[in-house]
Amino acid sequence: METDLIGTSIIGFSRGGKTAETFTAFDPASGNTVEPVFHSATNDELEIAAKLADEARLSYAAAAPVKRAAFLRSIADNIESLGDTLIKRASLETALPNARFEGERARTCFQLRMFADVLEEGSWVEARIDHAIPDRQPLPKPDVRSMLRPIGPVAVFCASNFPLAYSVAGGDTASALAAGCPVIVIGHTAHPGTAELVGIAVSKAVRDHQMPEGTFSLLFSAGYEMGQALVRHSAIKAVGFTGSRKGGRALMDFAAARPEPIPIYTEMSSVNPTFLLPNAIKERGNDIAKGLHASVTTGAGQFCTKPGLVFLPNDADSFVANFNSQIEQTTPPPLLTGGIRAAYVAGNLKRAGEVDNTAANEEAQLPGFAVNPSAFETTAIEYLNMPDLNEEIFGPTTLLIRSGEKEELLRIARALEGQLTASVHGTEEDLAEYADLIAILETKAGRLIFNGFSTGVEVCPSMVHGGPYPATSDGRSTAVGSRAITRFARLVCYQNFPQSALPNELKDENPQNIRRMVDGQVCQNRER
Amino acid sequence: METDLIGTSIIGFSRGGKTAETFTAFDPASGNTVEPVFHSATNDELEIAAKLADEARLSYAAAAPVKRAAFLRSIADNIESLGDTLIKRASLETALPNARFEGERARTCFQLRMFADVLEEGSWVEARIDHAIPDRQPLPKPDVRSMLRPIGPVAVFCASNFPLAYSVAGGDTASALAAGCPVIVIGHTAHPGTAELVGIAVSKAVRDHQMPEGTFSLLFSAGYEMGQALVRHSAIKAVGFTGSRKGGRALMDFAAARPEPIPIYTEMSSVNPTFLLPNAIKERGNDIAKGLHASVTTGAGQFCTKPGLVFLPNDADSFVANFNSQIEQTTPPPLLTGGIRAAYVAGNLKRAGEVDNTAANEEAQLPGFAVNPSAFETTAIEYLNMPDLNEEIFGPTTLLIRSGEKEELLRIARALEGQLTASVHGTEEDLAEYADLIAILETKAGRLIFNGFSTGVEVCPSMVHGGPYPATSDGRSTAVGSRAITRFARLVCYQNFPQSALPNELKDENPQNIRRMVDGQVCQNRER
Repeated sequence: METDLIGTSIIGFSRGGKTAETFTAFDPASGNTVEPVFHSATNDELEIAAKLADEARLSYAAAAPVKRAAFLRSIADNIESLGDTLIKRASLETALPNARFEGERARTCFQLRMFADVLEEGSWVEARIDHAIPDRQPLPKPDVRSMLRPIGPVAVFCASNFPLAYSVAGGDTASALAAGCPVIVIGHTAHPGTAELVGIAVSKAVRDHQMPEGTFSLLFSAGYEMGQALVRHSAIKAVGFTGSRKGGRALMDFAAARPEPIPIYTEMSSVNPTFLLPNAIKERGNDIAKGLHASVTTGAGQFCTKPGLVFLPNDADSFVANFNSQIEQTTPPPLLTGGIRAAYVAGNLKRAGEVDNTAANEEAQLPGFAVNPSAFETTAIEYLNMPDLNEEIFGPTTLLIRSGEKEELLRIARALEGQLTASVHGTEEDLAEYADLIAILETKAGRLIFNGFSTGVEVCPSMVHGGPYPATSDGRSTAVGSRAITRFARLVCYQNFPQSALPNELKDENPQNIRRMVDGQVCQNRER
Repeated sequence: METDLIGTSIIGFSRGGKTAETFTAFDPASGNTVEPVFHSATNDELEIAAKLADEARLSYAAAAPVKRAAFLRSIADNIESLGDTLIKRASLETALPNARFEGERARTCFQLRMFADVLEEGSWVEARIDHAIPDRQPLPKPDVRSMLRPIGPVAVFCASNFPLAYSVAGGDTASALAAGCPVIVIGHTAHPGTAELVGIAVSKAVRDHQMPEGTFSLLFSAGYEMGQALVRHSAIKAVGFTGSRKGGRALMDFAAARPEPIPIYTEMSSVNPTFLLPNAIKERGNDIAKGLHASVTTGAGQFCTKPGLVFLPNDADSFVANFNSQIEQTTPPPLLTGGIRAAYVAGNLKRAGEVDNTAANEEAQLPGFAVNPSAFETTAIEYLNMPDLNEEIFGPTTLLIRSGEKEELLRIARALEGQLTASVHGTEEDLAEYADLIAILETKAGRLIFNGFSTGVEVCPSMVHGGPYPATSDGRSTAVGSRAITRFARLVCYQNFPQSALPNELKDENPQNIRRMVDGQVCQNRER
């Protein structure tokens, strides 16, 4: 693979032009620009990418699942082949350590291979067969069969905070390609070099596996307009986005206002409420303070699952002192972009006007995009009166909220917006006593965690990384784990079709040997 | 059960007031009003119903699946107990024959009992378990488990054309109640007496089974504002609607513009393209003409699956003459409402200005809401130039389109909007020859039918009654069949929860003995 960066979009099998609108990445540690210059795609280039995706729609959907699986594995292999070039570039563009990207690369490749496994196993299509009963009274029963089929070309937006696992070949791209959908990625301006490298890896796999040209494109853009135009484009049939609440809601509104509205999965904003019950602090206060500090500051606090609201007992003075002192001792980390830094600084400033700012590194001239970690504190009563305190501040900060009675916690839980996660620390007896708190939190979050922290998302069949609005646009599904493949699929039913015209998954002989529901009973044809 | 109609809303365990805003049903055969007067709910009554539903959310969701199943069966029993009172009232309000409602009642009760079966079997929740691996390197693997949980209170709109199967206790209500969601129904002005009777049947079941008061309410309204207010209400978390494209899109826009956007399932507009390939007409022309006539005119053509566009060969003169003569011999049927009649007449008038009106009953003074069945005809070239011809005309009419080459049919298929169904009549060889037509239609419709007509929707596990916009707002799911229960559910994940705090479906011992995916393998604990 050619790994010299040229800074242009990847449009099917061609490269975009060196257009006049340009941007660069920055080294967040120094604030200096990083070579090379990147060129925004033109509207014409977007049109070509969309046309190619539209043309690839049927042929890519028709590729046998095992072929799509081999294609996904090949993307993972190619990403690994990029070796240290990729790790160093991602580290340079983010000021995050190499080790972080070794882990994130492993996750990215694991995700691609996991979906390859899902395709090879094959049962994800939820095939159902109901045989005809020609002599049924009063009317004959027809032969009816159905399964999930690809939804069509998908627009994927790279996330600022996951240059590998939620970007060019990240979770949304992997699940969309697995489902049989061509993908057009919009690169993130924070790490375009990482995007180009991964884009080259995907492109090579498309060619090597003789997939149609429009299976994959990567568009760069200095501004927001290109992404908005892509979401509005008639060829696009679904969207995956990870980013800010403002940006995500804008795309939701564009998707809903189309002549043909389309499904959109935006992951936007979550403050991941964390409830520290009295017995937990008594029994394990130091451990919890340490774990909370790591969860708030790892990756410079730039995780969608960072605990941003922590509820704790009124008398937890020593816990708070312990936690605050850890925050104060934390080296100011550089944030990913100047924009994220500015939003963090403004968010801290606003919050300092509302509640007590109990922990912050000393003010000093910090290099690049570095910021002081911080902690704030208030009471439950004040919190309930200030809805602004539910706003996510992206970066290494959190808000501690002292509360008293259980009834107050229930009131707080009822007032919460939708969340990716909610965590409860306590004893098993606490959990029983607070069963009504759990029941409320279950309506608010996609994932409930007991005696653990919300950062760190296991990639496994049962993971749910989702939640009601504004955590995501569509709380019915998950962005992480093998279930994510169903986001980019829709049910299609075949009535009275002859065997020869049915998809393999629905043929009587079950050539792929998948698990199906036949006449209401689930049949496990495969020994597993 | 008290079956004397009083004409007021049902708000939990209370009845609404005899408010000033009123309306009546009509007998479509005569156009005369039908007793009693119905009273629109007030905004205060809507607020009470919403508050009750919100209060019932957690307790109804917590009711054991077998209890919800017994409740659903009881609704079906109560509907059957209404006996001829229900059949006669539905027939009076619609001018459709008693036999139609005996069938529709059977379907309605079958749907309720089918979802009871689904609850008793229990595997619909898609439970997944991944066990912890505490010593995994570099990080321990947590215990992660997930399943579908109720989405929250659902607003259901009654359909004009299915007073039983898609109204108060119809498909949407049955699937929402099965999923564990309280329901607020907006009655249809075309058949409020039928609605009140069924509402009484549901209410009795709520009480008899000690379900929370807010589990069910039924609101009457003379206008559209109440439905819009309900869709915008913060207590409502999902919507089911069957009706016009204009009405459905308006509700979609309201749902998307909420501070917290919510899932909405609107079923709106479909012209159900029907392709008659040359060999089909040659071999079975008379049978197809007869079947097509029945499909276009049964129920006065008021089915969402009525074939509204029929593509046939250029030389099919005798087929067309045969079909047109059947249309001309059809007794003018009354439509459901004056509004539907007016829209039908206006649609026919507009179409007659665009293409040939080849079959219509003689003009005559028709009683009540009766209309002349009609047929129109044009060429593929004209059709492709007039997008208006894709507009649904609800009622007993269709448009025959003569076409030539296969390439022309492919062009037509590519230009189609989203549909509930697409049908192809031909030989098995035709199906192979037209495989590319099928591949395109698969991206346009929820159900593909071979040698059959689109009307008549089998209620079975594999049915898909859905399709891309504008057929529905959300082409990922189905309104009919057992899969519909997942519409009103969302994934929730439990990390590191002790056994005692887990839902039964996720406990190690599997007390409900359901099918689950455990550590990536599907386990069939139950002998089935």
